[in-house]
Amino acid sequence: MGRVTSRYRVVRMADGVATARPDSLAAEEPLEIRVSGRPLTVTMRTPGNDFDLARGFLVSEGVVAADSDIAAIRYCAGATADGTNTYNVLDVLLAEGVPLPDVSVERNFYTTSSCGLCGKASLEAVRTISKWRVDRDPLRLNAATIATLPEKLRAAQRVFDRTGGLHAAALFDATGDLWCVREDVGRHNAVDKVVGWALGEGRLPLSGTTLMVSGRASFELVQKAVMAGIPALAAVSAPSSLAVDLAREMGLTLIGFLRGSSMNVYSAVERIPAGEPLPC
Amino acid sequence: MGRVTSRYRVVRMADGVATARPDSLAAEEPLEIRVSGRPLTVTMRTPGNDFDLARGFLVSEGVVAADSDIAAIRYCAGATADGTNTYNVLDVLLAEGVPLPDVSVERNFYTTSSCGLCGKASLEAVRTISKWRVDRDPLRLNAATIATLPEKLRAAQRVFDRTGGLHAAALFDATGDLWCVREDVGRHNAVDKVVGWALGEGRLPLSGTTLMVSGRASFELVQKAVMAGIPALAAVSAPSSLAVDLAREMGLTLIGFLRGSSMNVYSAVERIPAGEPLPC
Repeated sequence: MGRVTSRYRVVRMADGVATARPDSLAAEEPLEIRVSGRPLTVTMRTPGNDFDLARGFLVSEGVVAADSDIAAIRYCAGATADGTNTYNVLDVLLAEGVPLPDVSVERNFYTTSSCGLCGKASLEAVRTISKWRVDRDPLRLNAATIATLPEKLRAAQRVFDRTGGLHAAALFDATGDLWCVREDVGRHNAVDKVVGWALGEGRLPLSGTTLMVSGRASFELVQKAVMAGIPALAAVSAPSSLAVDLAREMGLTLIGFLRGSSMNVYSAVERIPAGEPLPC
Repeated sequence: MGRVTSRYRVVRMADGVATARPDSLAAEEPLEIRVSGRPLTVTMRTPGNDFDLARGFLVSEGVVAADSDIAAIRYCAGATADGTNTYNVLDVLLAEGVPLPDVSVERNFYTTSSCGLCGKASLEAVRTISKWRVDRDPLRLNAATIATLPEKLRAAQRVFDRTGGLHAAALFDATGDLWCVREDVGRHNAVDKVVGWALGEGRLPLSGTTLMVSGRASFELVQKAVMAGIPALAAVSAPSSLAVDLAREMGLTLIGFLRGSSMNVYSAVERIPAGEPLPC
């Protein structure tokens, strides 16, 4: 527990000179998430906030939408032959009446019957399972406020400065106040931990908030935002084509290349007063 | 096919001024990999070199180790109700006598019977399924040669300059000559495409080579290198703790923070003459 960083000996080479010195590395360990005893997924994550990671993952998958959908979460003791608890296996017990998730490989893509596994079908799948309508969220954003988010995220990244090896995700309200920040070796995990925190706080859907991520914006990160009811996603780097497609389909404001006072807005730009509607 | 980038309209905001303009984004689409008709995994990838992606993924999973282990690969026509081929579903037919992979969630971690899903068990699993001994690879590296790799990788990244949204992986020989470079929205996919190319070329195990990646070095990237018989992995950014653990366990030379003429060497530093043995 609490193994967020580990110390290692490293040989630093610079201009032909080699020196041995200690270095802090981001911790990475496998986590298996079970639901009512059945394995659902294994992810490589940075230990810490594991219950939030599981909660957020289940929100993204459309399994739960309120903390009351979860009856209990516990680490599985006895996962090893000698009964040791590795704190790397979690079991989530769903509340009565909450259906168990589909554990097959196709679960993310075959929720719509017409699916031929294309980008369009992936968009439809998110629309089908999403419980919230982020396109109806009345959030209005100020470009000057958005420009402050990367620096606030960076300042809140306590571990980053030590290891240089963690992705970060943070949740901000419309005035730019930070609600929650999480770091992880996996970009998806950092977002799941933020969403899981919000679920535990009874804050879903996350109306009026902006999710900020340290890296790129992929389809799956937009999906996670939509599933949590977050109407805006801002990324330091580029979005993918399918991320933009999903953001436009769902009415989420997607911001990329957010650096200094400049940014690219790919969808729902009407939430930002200086902006103008995007021709499709 | 060939949808490596897509054009989108975007609103650029800088210092309060908003201007609409076109932008190139990295394409992202789902790919389902089937083995003998059974779904094995779904990954979000940049279209292109899909057969190599499937080949490399199967190498990483320990399913195949030579091109002759694969009888055929084909896109599945008729994946949709109307019979359209989305080019997003692949089926790999294994050669006679090659066992089908385990399709369960636990396949990566429960290959050793004593596993309690901890970091150590993850290391043991890779040792158990790996067909090559990278610790015995006679590769010797020159620090000055290693220092040239990031610039060579960057120069070879044709798509990167247009989108800023792709991860890259490249294979170099001991003299620093580039063999193969691949880009993808997914970091794992870029490596799988490189390894799959090498499998198709009959080059496994990849003795004497260095794999260079544009981002961080995770456990899974070290695993992929080991499974392909690659004795050295260099990353622009930080490794995770478990990546270093696996590299030390397997005798792979792991280099991080490779920038300009400086680098950190985390394991098997004896392959680099200027270096000295790392105290464990």
